[in-house]
Amino acid sequence: MNIQTAIQGATGYTGAELIRLIDAHPVFQIMHLGAHSQAGRKVSDALPGVSGTIGDTLLASADDPLPDEVELVFTALPHGASARCVQRALNSGKRVVDLSADFRHRDVATYKTAYGVDHPCPELLSEAIYGITEFQKDTLLAEARLVANPGCYPTSALLPLIPLLRAGVLDTGNIIIDSKSGASGAGRSARTELIFCEVNENVRAYGLPKHRHAWEIEEKACFFSDVRACIQFVPHILPMTRGMLSTLHLSGKQPETWCGILMNAFADKPFVCMLAEGQLPSIAGVAGSNRCDIGISVTGPDHAVVISCLDNLIKGAAGQAVQNANLMFGLNEQAGLSRIALWP
Amino acid sequence: MNIQTAIQGATGYTGAELIRLIDAHPVFQIMHLGAHSQAGRKVSDALPGVSGTIGDTLLASADDPLPDEVELVFTALPHGASARCVQRALNSGKRVVDLSADFRHRDVATYKTAYGVDHPCPELLSEAIYGITEFQKDTLLAEARLVANPGCYPTSALLPLIPLLRAGVLDTGNIIIDSKSGASGAGRSARTELIFCEVNENVRAYGLPKHRHAWEIEEKACFFSDVRACIQFVPHILPMTRGMLSTLHLSGKQPETWCGILMNAFADKPFVCMLAEGQLPSIAGVAGSNRCDIGISVTGPDHAVVISCLDNLIKGAAGQAVQNANLMFGLNEQAGLSRIALWP
Amino acid sequence: MNIQTAIQGATGYTGAELIRLIDAHPVFQIMHLGAHSQAGRKVSDALPGVSGTIGDTLLASADDPLPDEVELVFTALPHGASARCVQRALNSGKRVVDLSADFRHRDVATYKTAYGVDHPCPELLSEAIYGITEFQKDTLLAEARLVANPGCYPTSALLPLIPLLRAGVLDTGNIIIDSKSGASGAGRSARTELIFCEVNENVRAYGLPKHRHAWEIEEKACFFSDVRACIQFVPHILPMTRGMLSTLHLSGKQPETWCGILMNAFADKPFVCMLAEGQLPSIAGVAGSNRCDIGISVTGPDHAVVISCLDNLIKGAAGQAVQNANLMFGLNEQAGLSRIALWP
Amino acid sequence: MNIQTAIQGATGYTGAELIRLIDAHPVFQIMHLGAHSQAGRKVSDALPGVSGTIGDTLLASADDPLPDEVELVFTALPHGASARCVQRALNSGKRVVDLSADFRHRDVATYKTAYGVDHPCPELLSEAIYGITEFQKDTLLAEARLVANPGCYPTSALLPLIPLLRAGVLDTGNIIIDSKSGASGAGRSARTELIFCEVNENVRAYGLPKHRHAWEIEEKACFFSDVRACIQFVPHILPMTRGMLSTLHLSGKQPETWCGILMNAFADKPFVCMLAEGQLPSIAGVAGSNRCDIGISVTGPDHAVVISCLDNLIKGAAGQAVQNANLMFGLNEQAGLSRIALWP
Repeated sequence: MNIQTAIQGATGYTGAELIRLIDAHPVFQIMHLGAHSQAGRKVSDALPGVSGTIGDTLLASADDPLPDEVELVFTALPHGASARCVQRALNSGKRVVDLSADFRHRDVATYKTAYGVDHPCPELLSEAIYGITEFQKDTLLAEARLVANPGCYPTSALLPLIPLLRAGVLDTGNIIIDSKSGASGAGRSARTELIFCEVNENVRAYGLPKHRHAWEIEEKACFFSDVRACIQFVPHILPMTRGMLSTLHLSGKQPETWCGILMNAFADKPFVCMLAEGQLPSIAGVAGSNRCDIGISVTGPDHAVVISCLDNLIKGAAGQAVQNANLMFGLNEQAGLSRIALWP
Repeated sequence: MNIQTAIQGATGYTGAELIRLIDAHPVFQIMHLGAHSQAGRKVSDALPGVSGTIGDTLLASADDPLPDEVELVFTALPHGASARCVQRALNSGKRVVDLSADFRHRDVATYKTAYGVDHPCPELLSEAIYGITEFQKDTLLAEARLVANPGCYPTSALLPLIPLLRAGVLDTGNIIIDSKSGASGAGRSARTELIFCEVNENVRAYGLPKHRHAWEIEEKACFFSDVRACIQFVPHILPMTRGMLSTLHLSGKQPETWCGILMNAFADKPFVCMLAEGQLPSIAGVAGSNRCDIGISVTGPDHAVVISCLDNLIKGAAGQAVQNANLMFGLNEQAGLSRIALWP
Repeated sequence: MNIQTAIQGATGYTGAELIRLIDAHPVFQIMHLGAHSQAGRKVSDALPGVSGTIGDTLLASADDPLPDEVELVFTALPHGASARCVQRALNSGKRVVDLSADFRHRDVATYKTAYGVDHPCPELLSEAIYGITEFQKDTLLAEARLVANPGCYPTSALLPLIPLLRAGVLDTGNIIIDSKSGASGAGRSARTELIFCEVNENVRAYGLPKHRHAWEIEEKACFFSDVRACIQFVPHILPMTRGMLSTLHLSGKQPETWCGILMNAFADKPFVCMLAEGQLPSIAGVAGSNRCDIGISVTGPDHAVVISCLDNLIKGAAGQAVQNANLMFGLNEQAGLSRIALWP
Repeated sequence: MNIQTAIQGATGYTGAELIRLIDAHPVFQIMHLGAHSQAGRKVSDALPGVSGTIGDTLLASADDPLPDEVELVFTALPHGASARCVQRALNSGKRVVDLSADFRHRDVATYKTAYGVDHPCPELLSEAIYGITEFQKDTLLAEARLVANPGCYPTSALLPLIPLLRAGVLDTGNIIIDSKSGASGAGRSARTELIFCEVNENVRAYGLPKHRHAWEIEEKACFFSDVRACIQFVPHILPMTRGMLSTLHLSGKQPETWCGILMNAFADKPFVCMLAEGQLPSIAGVAGSNRCDIGISVTGPDHAVVISCLDNLIKGAAGQAVQNANLMFGLNEQAGLSRIALWP
């Protein structure tokens, strides 16, 4: 059985990763590649890493109609542009996993506050299923027409946070998330602040006082745990390409029990690996895989540090999109996804 | 059909890459993992990137007997140690792909000159098949008990060099190979000159006046082309983990014809991609894949620069080993190997 | 006027930085270089960056007697070894700036808890002056025989923290310091976890549940502010050589006033640069200089994020040592120190 | 004695390095900073590394008139723009060190071939003195109104090449220069190919078949040695910020004598360090200093590899400019320049 797919926004970093994953997928096949700006070029000219048959494909415009055979569309376009593209795909009867921010929020007001623009297609918001795979219901994914793939920071924050919020052990007024991301999270755009010599041998925080993803973390932490929490979120950009590490500084009761809570939560989740207490994860352990590794260190009678690591382009974007798509089409959740990192 | 394999030297960088590739291989399966120094530990404790079932495997000693079911052994041990391990595997009826330098040379004298020690098992040299897959005969690989997997520098140099030598177009007295390698080529050993702060933001040449791999390049260039050439080889270590770029400074006749010669040579080779004249390859285009990309620029009426790029741990080591093993066991050459890079 | 100095531990990263700074200093001169392990070699053989006359100096052993003319000794040896060396220098009438941890704590019990060994020279602890220059009294430095140079993490944490603690605006039960350091902070030692391929494209926290420098931060925050605070400290190692960024997640009252408090505190301090509110510092802005840049973003009615950046080998080690030595000898605090970064 | 200077093009990487060097110079002082695109901003807003008094300077436009007190102007603008700026400075009676390519060639035809545009001020070409300091006559520099500062690649190539050409030992038909440069050589421009994720973990050759600097190397090698040589030049961009390593693959007679030839040539040159035969330089040994380190390995009876390393922004640009300016104004050649690298 094959399922034909299209990728919109194929020439960005997330699009390139989708091509790599789907090209190796046992069921999904790439039938159509659309791009925001490089339509008409060969894929291999726009993406240095793509070779073989798929490399000879000509890039369509993101506005071009999709082939009839396509059942599933991945949209990895900038916010705003993505929503329109999603709408066209749904109207032509396709199912969609949207990797932009456009369908992550339930509420147009939050979207406008976080992204500074009016939502282009508010009528679709109510049917979008938020695809944090480990916490979303398989049945909802199986029926979804539109899955909103989570942001990379929210994925790294929510995976450890939701089980602890559900367990009621956290001091919800004092949750601090200090995140560190590789530069690929900023996308493939030619801005002076992103050129090599400005990022290399450098670190800086950005997006303060409230980064866009802070809204997403707050909303989804509450949605999946039924607990309202006050979350401080500070992201940093690091001199590396891939990977994300989030350090959660937490207080609450009986932190020595939290490792067990997290182990239980992820016992049957193939892509989340909860380490033994005191063992700390590293980005190198997950880069190139769809895994999120989580570790905890109890630092006081009512304090602990929880650290989560993932590859921002895989579990934080394209990999989780494939994981969601697998469940949408009744496939094995792990189809086409690796649990082993590309190391070193 | 499954074929059980063992990996000896599983905790080095090449061993880790073998685990990743074989874990995802459609036919080969990992039954046994041996290590030089970390025997008794769980694989996931020794290798941060390995998770899932295979991560729970206990590492055997490289001296432990191999399970009966194992048909194929990959040896990725230091030279000298590898030869002994190969001998034991052959004696117990296994077939072997050896990734060390121990069986690359036909002649014990060259081995001693290049590696400074007497060869431990000279009696096996004559039956070793040198596995530069694109130029080795499939029939020889199909029957081989022992395949000597080429070095990374030799692979990057020989792929573009052999077709040009065979065509008789090169000035054979004046072949210069200037190679640049990521630091993973130096292996996972705790030496001051390899620690981060000594390699980062730094470049240096090393191994002069004659690096070990210079002997291998000279011998195999001659063996596969029947042309004796004088080759100057200078390797450099770069501040990056993976990847190798070799710049061949060549003179000879009608360099405008060389691109065609190379295109013909690799027309049916899935893992060598000859670019259009004037187009230059980059490491980023091949890292994470088993590809070697080659480009050429004609720089004068009798000069050209030919550049080849590969991932030193894949096409330069573990990937080519799997490619050879595929042919040894009658499988599709591409089984379990990717032509798409992990980019960015 | 010239003042002759000696550097003990000259071949580590901090020692090398001391050589660079003092070689360019208008008053201090290098008369003697001692090394822990490379005695007898030429400096330029042990340190690739040192050339010229000073490069031809032969390294003495750290145990060798010091020339009579030497008035000032910088000791940059491992803890434990440094204390003995300091004692010998003091006994021969020299003044000392010790860059190890040996004389930072007032209390032998804290030292033993943090460093796991008994203090070798407890009798000297009471006279050591802790050299966080901006907060230490000039008169004490001017008379000191022994200055304990602060750790890099404590410097980056204490500079922003002490003025806010003194002002009484912080919630002292909830101070979280999330620090990120370049790999040079781990020193020049050949350990597998420090080799290039293990640090590059990677980030990890370490030293939990309580890093050695956490004790120093707690003790000195209290000593210089008379306020006892509960501090959570989590350090991370980054894929870069130099630089340190500490993110302080703080709560308290009227955070909109904190920028002014910090501006006042550092108004006359040439090496601490307090940025305008909302402007965030970066490591690239300070690397190669003796500056610490501090920025603040008010993130809620009772929350703010304060970020400090410095070069761990300069303001976090050798540069602050020279700054202290300048004041010990009645020189201009800025002598031989730069406020302009090596950028990019 | 102070000499007032202006820097045109202050906000690029070379301009920033000029600010750092001149701010610390014992005689030269910065009176005026002009910028191509950021006029009106404070220097510290445009350049993260600049603090203190100089950071508060407002950037003038590169077209603004220069203060009367300015005696010396450094122009670090893009080619074409620089020539016009130089002309205005000369017309107002200033002396100029131009760091662009505009006055390096004697011949307008070569300039047009290499840079693709007509020369804006051909009448000034004849009086420009090419400032490869070690080979230029001090008397010419002392009298020069206009010094053309060499390119970074030419500096790294010419320093080892000229003495060997002068000695008549090289096979002049077969000189191959394989150069590796940090990304700062490409300047501070927002192009997709320069963003972090495209340069990091990557290497590529560029500028083929004939890079602009190849013309400069050929012309100046001939000018300073009176020997016409055929030079093949291939530059590569590396994943690092600063530094340049050029590998010269040379053939000729009695290569065992070449180390001595080079040692003699540079015996009294403070910024060129010729290493003992077989000892190889590294970029880390020179980055942050104005040194060029050169090493040689004799690789055959008529072959040798000569390797030169320098910091492309210092000895390859701003440092050599200051070195030339020192001689223009009768100062010590070493004034304000360091022979010790910033290491690690």
